[in-house]
Amino acid sequence: MGTIIAVDIGGTHLRTAAYESEQFKPSAYQRTNTLANEPGVFDRMVKAIEEVWPHTQKVDAISVSSPGPLDPYTGCLLSTPNIKQLDNFPLAPKLSEHFGVPAYLDNDANMACLGEWKYGAAKGHHDVLYLTISTGVGGGVMVNDQLLQGYHGLAAELGHSIVDPDGPPCSCGFNGHLESFSSGPAIVKYVLKELEAGAKSSLKRDPNLDARQVAEAASKGDELSVSAYRRAGEYLGIAVANFLVAFDPSIIIFGGGVSQVGPLLFDSFRASLQTRVFYPRYLENLKIEMAALGDDAGLLGARTLAEVFLQARR
Amino acid sequence: MGTIIAVDIGGTHLRTAAYESEQFKPSAYQRTNTLANEPGVFDRMVKAIEEVWPHTQKVDAISVSSPGPLDPYTGCLLSTPNIKQLDNFPLAPKLSEHFGVPAYLDNDANMACLGEWKYGAAKGHHDVLYLTISTGVGGGVMVNDQLLQGYHGLAAELGHSIVDPDGPPCSCGFNGHLESFSSGPAIVKYVLKELEAGAKSSLKRDPNLDARQVAEAASKGDELSVSAYRRAGEYLGIAVANFLVAFDPSIIIFGGGVSQVGPLLFDSFRASLQTRVFYPRYLENLKIEMAALGDDAGLLGARTLAEVFLQARR
Repeated sequence: MGTIIAVDIGGTHLRTAAYESEQFKPSAYQRTNTLANEPGVFDRMVKAIEEVWPHTQKVDAISVSSPGPLDPYTGCLLSTPNIKQLDNFPLAPKLSEHFGVPAYLDNDANMACLGEWKYGAAKGHHDVLYLTISTGVGGGVMVNDQLLQGYHGLAAELGHSIVDPDGPPCSCGFNGHLESFSSGPAIVKYVLKELEAGAKSSLKRDPNLDARQVAEAASKGDELSVSAYRRAGEYLGIAVANFLVAFDPSIIIFGGGVSQVGPLLFDSFRASLQTRVFYPRYLENLKIEMAALGDDAGLLGARTLAEVFLQARR
Repeated sequence: MGTIIAVDIGGTHLRTAAYESEQFKPSAYQRTNTLANEPGVFDRMVKAIEEVWPHTQKVDAISVSSPGPLDPYTGCLLSTPNIKQLDNFPLAPKLSEHFGVPAYLDNDANMACLGEWKYGAAKGHHDVLYLTISTGVGGGVMVNDQLLQGYHGLAAELGHSIVDPDGPPCSCGFNGHLESFSSGPAIVKYVLKELEAGAKSSLKRDPNLDARQVAEAASKGDELSVSAYRRAGEYLGIAVANFLVAFDPSIIIFGGGVSQVGPLLFDSFRASLQTRVFYPRYLENLKIEMAALGDDAGLLGARTLAEVFLQARR
């Protein structure tokens, strides 16, 4: 196999890397600012790819990890709330046309799941559930070593699972989604609401409050902050009980900033999951682990997707 | 390929059929009573298999559809609430040993899903969601033409998805499952509770009331009965919105007695689904259809599972 060029479009950074087969570390790596609201995102991407393009090695494919929603089968971005210029943009076809190699596309959570399965915490597992908890909640699922994509390529959008039909509004506008209980902004929103209702706390009613500050206050014993994370963990447990019933994975991997807080979130998560799983066998030998690839998950996942496609074509 | 012997263990009937390859109709068929509470279930099964065993054709495999929970990988029944004698019973190994051919096992909802995919309403679809709504609610899922089984073989137990964490108790003892809102007994329980609370209805507080009687009363305009099915449909819509987000199928197939009532259940289901799906693309080209195989779904599904295994071995 030749080189695979992986691209990771993040809200802040646009990363590209060139991977030679059998080598875990990229032979070339480039990071630039996405500048999502300034013109020329696609041109910047082309330039960033050119900068890691190998001089002698043949390139087999380009593979892109991007925020969704998108259509992995046509390689088109659909509506990208964070990069308005790329709305309904045929990204993979454009890259393929420009560089003369196949180009693949899937969303960041699916790519991170693939990356963790091939190179990270889920290595050796065949049935994987990946959840990233940060500004949003994203999901990825491997079923019998295959990425679960679905008919429209919209499978495993697990942050938008309804956990409580009467729950608070999600960023998407619908009610009671996992994301509306357990994402960073949901935790902050709960704290602000409780402060407004007169709850006692070391935190002030600050519109710029973030989930990290809530975690810090919790670590210093602030009751309201502790209860905000506890609540997020409880609903996460309910959602994951449903994901076990749906997918029956052998491992759950947690990524994303909010999942870095440790027991503050995961003690109540585990207790809630234990309480809600209707059949104990789901938990037998079930591993619950933190993502291992950090910021490289998108790049390594994109690389994996290309490897899977290239393998299938041989 | 030779003959496949399919076995369907139902609560009431034990069916066996011999299928020759390329023939839709069985060359031999046998139905007897399961008599789940009387000794000798396994011996009756052996006898029923012998009665359809071909005289000249070679048998390639036996494949059994059974109520769960079970382990499809070892072929063992786990805890079978309805057939106590077969608790923790290694059914497939026992049959394989007795008849000297491979034997396979999976649960009735998975088998029905497989059957509908290969021979029924989901023919030609790659991503299938099957739901059976009767005394319980069962699920089966095909992902990219593969049955979703999961690590323990317990995937797609969708009747036990939590739809409302504070909902009523399910037959399994846990709260707020789809089955506790939308199964036949759940519909009846709701009616009885409302009658007890003084609701007006043509129905009496009869402990033997069943979902069919509620449907009949509804068809004659009984408001309480109409509302009981409407509620079942609404929660079904919430659950299915979550299944779309999880699996993104191209078709949903409904089987089971309760799903025979038509608009009484499905009008509110469709309205609820429409309201709850957070991204309209999930519904594009999505087919919602009734199961086509009726009582033969278990047999044809078991047959399909054997075909899949035998195909993989060639």
